[in-house]
Amino acid sequence: MKAVRVHAYGEPARIESVPDPVVRGPLEVLVEINAAGVCRTDLHILEGQWADKSGVTLPYTIGHENAGTVREVGSAVSGVRPGDKVILHPLVTCGLCRPCRSGDDVHCENSSFPGIDTDGGMAELMLTNARSVVRLSEQLAPADVAALADAGLTAYHAVRKAVPSLYPGTHAVVIGAGGLGHIGLQALLALTPARTIVVDRSPEVLRLAGELGAHHTVHADGSQVDAVRDLTRGAGAQVVLDFVGEHGTESDGIAMTRDAGSYFVIGYGGRVDVPTIDIISREINVIGNLVGSYNDLDELMTLTAQGKVALRTRTYPLDAALDALADLDANRIPGGRAILVP
Amino acid sequence: MKAVRVHAYGEPARIESVPDPVVRGPLEVLVEINAAGVCRTDLHILEGQWADKSGVTLPYTIGHENAGTVREVGSAVSGVRPGDKVILHPLVTCGLCRPCRSGDDVHCENSSFPGIDTDGGMAELMLTNARSVVRLSEQLAPADVAALADAGLTAYHAVRKAVPSLYPGTHAVVIGAGGLGHIGLQALLALTPARTIVVDRSPEVLRLAGELGAHHTVHADGSQVDAVRDLTRGAGAQVVLDFVGEHGTESDGIAMTRDAGSYFVIGYGGRVDVPTIDIISREINVIGNLVGSYNDLDELMTLTAQGKVALRTRTYPLDAALDALADLDANRIPGGRAILVP
Amino acid sequence: MKAVRVHAYGEPARIESVPDPVVRGPLEVLVEINAAGVCRTDLHILEGQWADKSGVTLPYTIGHENAGTVREVGSAVSGVRPGDKVILHPLVTCGLCRPCRSGDDVHCENSSFPGIDTDGGMAELMLTNARSVVRLSEQLAPADVAALADAGLTAYHAVRKAVPSLYPGTHAVVIGAGGLGHIGLQALLALTPARTIVVDRSPEVLRLAGELGAHHTVHADGSQVDAVRDLTRGAGAQVVLDFVGEHGTESDGIAMTRDAGSYFVIGYGGRVDVPTIDIISREINVIGNLVGSYNDLDELMTLTAQGKVALRTRTYPLDAALDALADLDANRIPGGRAILVP
Amino acid sequence: MKAVRVHAYGEPARIESVPDPVVRGPLEVLVEINAAGVCRTDLHILEGQWADKSGVTLPYTIGHENAGTVREVGSAVSGVRPGDKVILHPLVTCGLCRPCRSGDDVHCENSSFPGIDTDGGMAELMLTNARSVVRLSEQLAPADVAALADAGLTAYHAVRKAVPSLYPGTHAVVIGAGGLGHIGLQALLALTPARTIVVDRSPEVLRLAGELGAHHTVHADGSQVDAVRDLTRGAGAQVVLDFVGEHGTESDGIAMTRDAGSYFVIGYGGRVDVPTIDIISREINVIGNLVGSYNDLDELMTLTAQGKVALRTRTYPLDAALDALADLDANRIPGGRAILVP
Repeated sequence: MKAVRVHAYGEPARIESVPDPVVRGPLEVLVEINAAGVCRTDLHILEGQWADKSGVTLPYTIGHENAGTVREVGSAVSGVRPGDKVILHPLVTCGLCRPCRSGDDVHCENSSFPGIDTDGGMAELMLTNARSVVRLSEQLAPADVAALADAGLTAYHAVRKAVPSLYPGTHAVVIGAGGLGHIGLQALLALTPARTIVVDRSPEVLRLAGELGAHHTVHADGSQVDAVRDLTRGAGAQVVLDFVGEHGTESDGIAMTRDAGSYFVIGYGGRVDVPTIDIISREINVIGNLVGSYNDLDELMTLTAQGKVALRTRTYPLDAALDALADLDANRIPGGRAILVP
Repeated sequence: MKAVRVHAYGEPARIESVPDPVVRGPLEVLVEINAAGVCRTDLHILEGQWADKSGVTLPYTIGHENAGTVREVGSAVSGVRPGDKVILHPLVTCGLCRPCRSGDDVHCENSSFPGIDTDGGMAELMLTNARSVVRLSEQLAPADVAALADAGLTAYHAVRKAVPSLYPGTHAVVIGAGGLGHIGLQALLALTPARTIVVDRSPEVLRLAGELGAHHTVHADGSQVDAVRDLTRGAGAQVVLDFVGEHGTESDGIAMTRDAGSYFVIGYGGRVDVPTIDIISREINVIGNLVGSYNDLDELMTLTAQGKVALRTRTYPLDAALDALADLDANRIPGGRAILVP
Repeated sequence: MKAVRVHAYGEPARIESVPDPVVRGPLEVLVEINAAGVCRTDLHILEGQWADKSGVTLPYTIGHENAGTVREVGSAVSGVRPGDKVILHPLVTCGLCRPCRSGDDVHCENSSFPGIDTDGGMAELMLTNARSVVRLSEQLAPADVAALADAGLTAYHAVRKAVPSLYPGTHAVVIGAGGLGHIGLQALLALTPARTIVVDRSPEVLRLAGELGAHHTVHADGSQVDAVRDLTRGAGAQVVLDFVGEHGTESDGIAMTRDAGSYFVIGYGGRVDVPTIDIISREINVIGNLVGSYNDLDELMTLTAQGKVALRTRTYPLDAALDALADLDANRIPGGRAILVP
Repeated sequence: MKAVRVHAYGEPARIESVPDPVVRGPLEVLVEINAAGVCRTDLHILEGQWADKSGVTLPYTIGHENAGTVREVGSAVSGVRPGDKVILHPLVTCGLCRPCRSGDDVHCENSSFPGIDTDGGMAELMLTNARSVVRLSEQLAPADVAALADAGLTAYHAVRKAVPSLYPGTHAVVIGAGGLGHIGLQALLALTPARTIVVDRSPEVLRLAGELGAHHTVHADGSQVDAVRDLTRGAGAQVVLDFVGEHGTESDGIAMTRDAGSYFVIGYGGRVDVPTIDIISREINVIGNLVGSYNDLDELMTLTAQGKVALRTRTYPLDAALDALADLDANRIPGGRAILVP
């Protein structure tokens, strides 16, 4: 089969032919990939930023946002059959450790992460297991949802954790309404009665957020903290979701958070740096957020099938994977996600 | 009546005679102070560190850890009567705003803080209101509990918030088992089945923690992070309670926290400074903690009456208040709390 | 002032002139009643069904769903001023007991219930206190919201408690979508992503439910349990809200509840009668629901101001109160609520 | 191997020789049974009460409270190895359905129940899978813990669910402190600061409860509801755990429950029969409880290893299984549990 492979860090990926993966274990599932999201993390992998962290042996196949059609299943697989359309949870988990048994499979003690530390889905086929496949309902096409498998799932997960704080009359701030943030906004609107305030540097992104239903949009022109405080009667928001996490959004986010409220870190690159006196006198929380669980992904697919979450995408043939990576690197895919299709 | 008053920052307090306070409002309660805790915050007030924050007009009476006997009540007061022994919640709250109506009266939108921004309890009498007085059961004497009104209450509050994370098999780390921390340790033992690990620089404090029932004690000699990780099979603790919050405990505390766990900030003076990539990849939380609510104080008094929480104290006559402040400033009250008594 | 008063059980109420109430206590609030809901409970009071339970001394003024304009406030009242439009929480609570301090003021240990055990709001003026008045935003008129003060608040409260069980992909059943139920439906749609199934005997009520956005409607013609199970793939719903609570909805509701799910009792008149073996083998919960808290009412007013909850009403002048009561008794106000206006 | 088998309902079980089970699937685990609890459910199975419910094909091997030593594991099993001592969760679950992925594996959509609907552990060997084995720490012997696998686990599960309601100052009532109840009592003391009140008809059971640390014991002589209300200042307990569930404890339990409190049904045989008006006016909850999850069992083993939970047992050789069943049937094992050992 064809696959997009990394041979050396600092060099472009190569599209080449490799042997088809084969179902060996009883819980394994072989999936024909119909759609693979192209993500900024793929660029970072190629640059070598993940080399130490993943410890992966080169060459290997990238692609960690995958959806497709089941081709073959192991003997112990229930729940999916050949021909079923599926989206793949980014992690392959054990189902035996305490996190897996508690709905927190993202912290599985024995997981692998296809596309990061083992072969991923920028290929014609990918091998995964029964714990990672979420069956898609009829209305959903793999190409429409693949990019929700990781980025969208992270946004959904953070919103899901914020739900208990967001009753009628509360405010939720979304800092950065690009790829992840605009999924976060849609999840907020679907799950909570909170008033949403979207903060971004791009007027175009703010316009789109308004179309999606954001109650307020704030241009990040230097006055954004004041603007958010004005919109919240001077008190700040109960929940601030920071999809940027660098370039000063960290301190902005803390400043926009109401006393006794929570600042959710989703984007990364910068630092949270706060005096302990402020943390305690304001009794605020800083909440870390990783990708969502399998159940989160299942719920996100439900919302997507109900039309409550949608993603703008631009498809490229698998053979044009290097073009897609180059376009992403050059910011030529504004407001959308590149998806590789067969 | 006699009162310990601040006339100018940077100068010693003065013990002087002032008019007795008088019950005017229907919810007011006049209390004969039988015990007033002496706290490091009193030293900071005298140094002027709180001048801007409190905005109090000098001169005024300090003392924010108070217990005593009700002398007189306003016309609308139910629940306490003259002669009742009471401990005073540190805040005087309105009972009308959303926080007051939600069990979060510490974030009352209209509160005052006797001893900080209005006259406190280092005096023969203090005026408070019906929302601030917790009636003491027979077994409790004001002098034994006064110091729990603020410091102890803060420790209890943090532990109370951590309870849902502390099921059998989990670990809770207590960094700093002095005044607040050793109350926190006792609260952990009373409320949760977690294994407790106490970290401190003082062997004497560790010895005391062991006597109180700490499951493990770790000397903070530079190897404390490794020691905690060893005690938790390399994973860190589900909950880390930092009663110090400066001098490096901030980074130690984060490092001792298990992935998906929570670092509770209680002490202050330093900074929490963490890369956002660590917050998200480890999915950890930083939880701020202010003083507890009225209900928290009521629960803490229940535990104290049941013998599950105890405090070591050293009493001084009110006339010797300046000696008590000087002894505290010179660290001459190790492992205990100074209490002013009539 | 004019007031609608009960002089003897079993006899019609009388509209008569009584002295104006007067503000005496510092937290009291005198309200000009602009709208008073007429409720089936008023009929039951007149019949004498509440005589023992309330222990009220006759004669007295009924009316427990009230909204109006503040005329005068006591010396300690903050938050509202003369001229403010307000809705009145049905209970007058103390703000001092543990329930009041925990957001559960409905279980206040010292409450009174105007219109039930003391003078209510079917009058030109009513005396209440600062803990009971929720200020209305500009868009809301007292006549539009009065009937939400008790019936609507009860429906909202039950839905609010059910929120944590209702994630994407779940189902909520509403049994009985009349007065309370159709508020419950709107609250479900505003607060949760659950699919809603409305069960009622009236095709007209089902049609209205559909217009409000119910995802499914089921005619209670004897096949309703099967219909709900079919709509939930045979498993039943995670949450069943029973706004009827008699005439067999109790057993229907239990049968419609999914294993590990919850049956919420809101309406009353019948009995819940279930073998303990079923309760444990299915691990189901039966959840009682009383009227909502002050904070619940505040949230409900927020939703109403946002246009997410609306009520159909029919106004009568206060002088025509007996007509309104008679029309209600004769079921001549289908699908709406009678409101007395000045 | 030898096994205790049911051939026909209404007849005694037979001890006979059957072929050894064999590991075939990759997640299967073959366990040498060192201890099998004898439970009243085994008597009910033999009487035929479970025939319809289980649908099991006769003959088969009973025994659903099992502990032993791993003999062999399938190719995909991690976590346990031959030679490990283990206790077996009563259910064999799939790890793929939503309940399994949410910490609620008891509601697995594809589970089997050895000893009930497939071959159980009253035998020399039993086949289970990797999702059902909890490894025991060194200090625990299979014979000491086997009876916790089902009965004890059920008691623990109910207590675990009650923890959030049981803060300092609350009361928990235990109705029936026999087999399950005295485990429930120990779990309450280990997990919560609540005051415990044990109600039982047997003075001997009450004496034992007192030794275990019950704060109050109440003889069920007809005055038990009044006694509990007296001990709770007339209000009832926040949590009532009914380990009997028949013979009137159902109505007693409801009457002992405080307004806004919860009545937990664990024992069964009778009916919960309550007017809906009482459920709503008192806003009480009836909470069903089935056996605990795998994580619950793991936690219970932690408490047992810590010496916080202990069980009195009486061992019988496997060959004397019929004697053990007869002794249980004749109530000749008071206050203890019969355990079959090799």
